[in-house]
Amino acid sequence: MISSNRLISGIRPTGELHVGNYYGALKGLVEQQERYDARYFIADIHSLTTHPKPDDLRGFVIGTARNYLAGGLDPERCTLYVQSSLAAEICELHTYLSMVMPLGELLRVPTFKEKAKRHPDNVNYGLVGYPVLMAADILLFKSQTVMVGDDQLVHLELAREIARRFNQLYGDVFPEPQPLLDNAARIPSLSGAGKMSKSDGAAAYVSLQDDRAAVGEKTRKALSDPLRGYRSQPGHPTAEGCNVFRLHTFFTGESERAAIAGACRAAGIGCVECKERLADSFSAVIEPFRERHMRLSEDDAVDILRIGRDKARESARSVIAEVRQAMGLLML
Amino acid sequence: MISSNRLISGIRPTGELHVGNYYGALKGLVEQQERYDARYFIADIHSLTTHPKPDDLRGFVIGTARNYLAGGLDPERCTLYVQSSLAAEICELHTYLSMVMPLGELLRVPTFKEKAKRHPDNVNYGLVGYPVLMAADILLFKSQTVMVGDDQLVHLELAREIARRFNQLYGDVFPEPQPLLDNAARIPSLSGAGKMSKSDGAAAYVSLQDDRAAVGEKTRKALSDPLRGYRSQPGHPTAEGCNVFRLHTFFTGESERAAIAGACRAAGIGCVECKERLADSFSAVIEPFRERHMRLSEDDAVDILRIGRDKARESARSVIAEVRQAMGLLML
Repeated sequence: MISSNRLISGIRPTGELHVGNYYGALKGLVEQQERYDARYFIADIHSLTTHPKPDDLRGFVIGTARNYLAGGLDPERCTLYVQSSLAAEICELHTYLSMVMPLGELLRVPTFKEKAKRHPDNVNYGLVGYPVLMAADILLFKSQTVMVGDDQLVHLELAREIARRFNQLYGDVFPEPQPLLDNAARIPSLSGAGKMSKSDGAAAYVSLQDDRAAVGEKTRKALSDPLRGYRSQPGHPTAEGCNVFRLHTFFTGESERAAIAGACRAAGIGCVECKERLADSFSAVIEPFRERHMRLSEDDAVDILRIGRDKARESARSVIAEVRQAMGLLML
Repeated sequence: MISSNRLISGIRPTGELHVGNYYGALKGLVEQQERYDARYFIADIHSLTTHPKPDDLRGFVIGTARNYLAGGLDPERCTLYVQSSLAAEICELHTYLSMVMPLGELLRVPTFKEKAKRHPDNVNYGLVGYPVLMAADILLFKSQTVMVGDDQLVHLELAREIARRFNQLYGDVFPEPQPLLDNAARIPSLSGAGKMSKSDGAAAYVSLQDDRAAVGEKTRKALSDPLRGYRSQPGHPTAEGCNVFRLHTFFTGESERAAIAGACRAAGIGCVECKERLADSFSAVIEPFRERHMRLSEDDAVDILRIGRDKARESARSVIAEVRQAMGLLML
């Protein structure tokens, strides 16, 4: 049975997903929709701090919805909506919360300081207020649980503080939301340089939209065991010894992986064959995704987002009414 | 004929008005409703930065509406609404505008620095964003003209900058609003210490709700000519020489004032009589106000505020739709 514990999590409106994302945040969202009263939103208002091109943003939002639905979010099991489709409610709460959050603490948030340092020409008011907007996303539903990556724990702590400060001034309105870590696996890049990420170029990641040929080609070029110069040498099939083997640990089943490791150590298979099998493992994840993605049109996604908006808005509005009442705003 | 030039001005939700307010902002608002497509709003969201008690705030908002209506705002000639009754629209625009306004410039605004210095324990995120929220108030109607006191010119300049920055990023959406100075007269305090203000205690101002007896009593205690010790001495009836005479220059007609001045200089009348005539002049302003105020119930005020909200909201929503479109937010 689904619990009545209200969980919320935000999704960045990026373009295509890669297999790293699949084992990253997406899998966690799919799992938690079975356990919580889950709300997931595509965080398009947050993304405005960096001024995306309007056409890009529109495409990203719909694309992200399709991807996450194809990846297993089920509108029967969770509420999926676009943040800006609830802009009226979220921004109203955001503005009220901005009156209780000390500026000094926002200026000390490490992610803000880092962004301000990297883009000194775009330190806008909204950027420093990111945690306040995030608090509004969460508190708008009196969410008890927030699924976040560990990089977001500082922001969540601020949301908890905002809830406390608001309650202190205006009475017991908000619960203090608790974190649920997404425990996203850090899938290594094909290049071997850190985490798989789109910012490293198309050769470094396998997209969930790549077909089998593209997957094969990218995987063939992946960094493998730097100490194995020739096919006839034995390899080092461990997570530390070989980047390709490390990828196998995420995508290939245990028994097949053991067979590959044994053959590699005995120089029974070469890197070319090992990579081919990794490409097959990738495909096992990608193919069902591609199939569902193909069956789900943009219009389908928009319909689902509309249903999500209506469902989310209803409960949001009752919280807004309670907040207005508590602050002494006139109910005309 | 009323021009189509859209003017906007905000009203602080304070409690009662005094005669200084009447010749201050109120008179200007009443005059401009004849000339502009005027929108006036009671700025309750702005007041949240200082965390008013909820019951106080509710009372202040309704009280302010009644006072300004009794003071001559005419719902047939202007749109009067409560800021929070359009919270959804204003706060949404506020959040979007927060993404284009550099934080550094907000931190340099003199009124912010002053407030931060006076109340170092309450420097909240919303306080530094005051000009951004004000920009939202203005731009939400594509207002061309903003009636402000000269202390607000810096904020208006920021609203103009926000409009320019938004337009630069997203196309030509907002006009740059122009200031119309309210030229509010600085009515002196009864105590002679600066401007009439409620913060100096009830004896220093004449409330628009004072009856004739109260007006007489307060006026009798007003500071007059410090160099006239006795009734038999001639007085100094100039704006500099006598605080009571200075008040006459605002509230008493020219010919009567000349007669008073002549008699004072000749020691023909004493301060007691002169003050009695000032009390009459105050009453000439107060009595029609009190009468209109008495005839206008709280329910009447609420009805007018509802009509104002509906009128204002309609045009606000079309601007919000245009803004969303320009920024690339999905129109679900």
